[in-house]
Amino acid sequence: MLYLIGLGLGDAKDITVKGLEVVRRCSRVYLEGYTSVLTVGKEALEEFYERKLIVADREAVEQEADNILKDADISDVAFLVVGDPFGATTHSDLVLRAAKLGIPYRVIHNASIMNAVGCCGLQLYNFGETVSIVFWTDTWRPESFFDKVKKNRENGMHTLCLLDIKVKEQSLENLIKGRKIYEPPRYMSVNQAAQQLLEIVQNQRIRGEEPAITEETLCVGLARVGAEDQKIAAGTLQQMCTVDLGEPLHSLIITGGSLHPLEVEMLSLFSIPENSSESQSIDGV
Amino acid sequence: MLYLIGLGLGDAKDITVKGLEVVRRCSRVYLEGYTSVLTVGKEALEEFYERKLIVADREAVEQEADNILKDADISDVAFLVVGDPFGATTHSDLVLRAAKLGIPYRVIHNASIMNAVGCCGLQLYNFGETVSIVFWTDTWRPESFFDKVKKNRENGMHTLCLLDIKVKEQSLENLIKGRKIYEPPRYMSVNQAAQQLLEIVQNQRIRGEEPAITEETLCVGLARVGAEDQKIAAGTLQQMCTVDLGEPLHSLIITGGSLHPLEVEMLSLFSIPENSSESQSIDGV
Repeated sequence: MLYLIGLGLGDAKDITVKGLEVVRRCSRVYLEGYTSVLTVGKEALEEFYERKLIVADREAVEQEADNILKDADISDVAFLVVGDPFGATTHSDLVLRAAKLGIPYRVIHNASIMNAVGCCGLQLYNFGETVSIVFWTDTWRPESFFDKVKKNRENGMHTLCLLDIKVKEQSLENLIKGRKIYEPPRYMSVNQAAQQLLEIVQNQRIRGEEPAITEETLCVGLARVGAEDQKIAAGTLQQMCTVDLGEPLHSLIITGGSLHPLEVEMLSLFSIPENSSESQSIDGV
Repeated sequence: MLYLIGLGLGDAKDITVKGLEVVRRCSRVYLEGYTSVLTVGKEALEEFYERKLIVADREAVEQEADNILKDADISDVAFLVVGDPFGATTHSDLVLRAAKLGIPYRVIHNASIMNAVGCCGLQLYNFGETVSIVFWTDTWRPESFFDKVKKNRENGMHTLCLLDIKVKEQSLENLIKGRKIYEPPRYMSVNQAAQQLLEIVQNQRIRGEEPAITEETLCVGLARVGAEDQKIAAGTLQQMCTVDLGEPLHSLIITGGSLHPLEVEMLSLFSIPENSSESQSIDGV
């Protein structure tokens, strides 16, 4: 049996009791290591799970899926995913390959950023399409996701923006030379995302378009959702450019415009003080 | 401290390790008992958690929130919610009351139907606004939610339909006489939801409107997501009227029209055989 097991969002103890039991009895345990991270590293997981973990990066999952699935028809293999196996990133490819090989699979669900963002008080019902914001480079500055934000706003829906994660990236030089030397991981902050968004807004103004959002649009920045030191800050897009939310992972919500009174009241728990001389966030424990 | 703890979707062991540790050390443990159910009852939870649970129905949470929060500033109180505390139903009201009383709170997240539906292979990214389908009565047959389905379809988005749960309802007679006698719980099935949807489609045709969906629209029925015996069936809305998914809880997805190839391939794992003389579902383990 192939088990796809969600680890939740915080630390080693956010796995479910059922998930932990399965991990401890599987013959091999893989840890998906490229789409998200917990606030603790692989070693902390290994200690708590009492199992050695095999890190499976994107290459491994794509190229060595058959190794991962080896003997899974006669023994139990676990594939661990931060969040939920069918959350922000789906692992349909692995499931489909298992199905083709006649290997049964089972999903042990957990919280993912896709539902845990509800903790800020915005109702999950009222979210439209989720978007991803990627790191811009000098030559690649995609704006197309912004159309989805616009459509969501037009329909009064909030937009969850998942922020880029660069893990195991090679520099152009190392890539060309075929050297498997990797850059340090990078995680987009709410500040960076907000700055890119404001740049898009400026570009649209220059082109004479009416942008769907402005500096004053109400947004919510979230960091380390589900962890003990999670932070949530509600304020304008302009404020999101400087608010200090600390360590990764960060996510950003662009609100849909009209809010339910309960949403307003909940967000007020996390609002950035209007007169703060320097921006600060309010702990969202 | 007030702890809002998600229990996940299947049985007692779907609580997280962290959640279980908190439950076992809290002075009082409430179980929210009106928005969703696990496949096991209160007694099974009490046995596994090794704690007595106080069932808090809607009345209790609304009227006796202060009792729930009593002494939570000097001791630990847990409020357990099937799924996630900020999933389909939010518990913002309890959080806001705690905040007003100066009681700190913490959320321990878990899977909810809002993210676990991803297991059918439709990507969570591509879901629009979630809707609720309520039981129709002779005199109350709301169709307004259908506009949201239409808007989602126009934008190519899937619609998750949460199906009505009637727990602790009184008959009109008992309500008038003030007798606290409750009807047996009722849970809407995918069949019932599909039949109501088709009736709306017919009504629109009679009024000369072009319905956003037809008998042939691709839908996905899900039952007991996260449990060992979960079932998923992909087929037309017409097929959803008769497919047998077994015990509650059920949910229904109306697809957004154009699907990603990976979504198509995943759904094919769950498709209802075209030539089946009687409808049947495919186990979605």
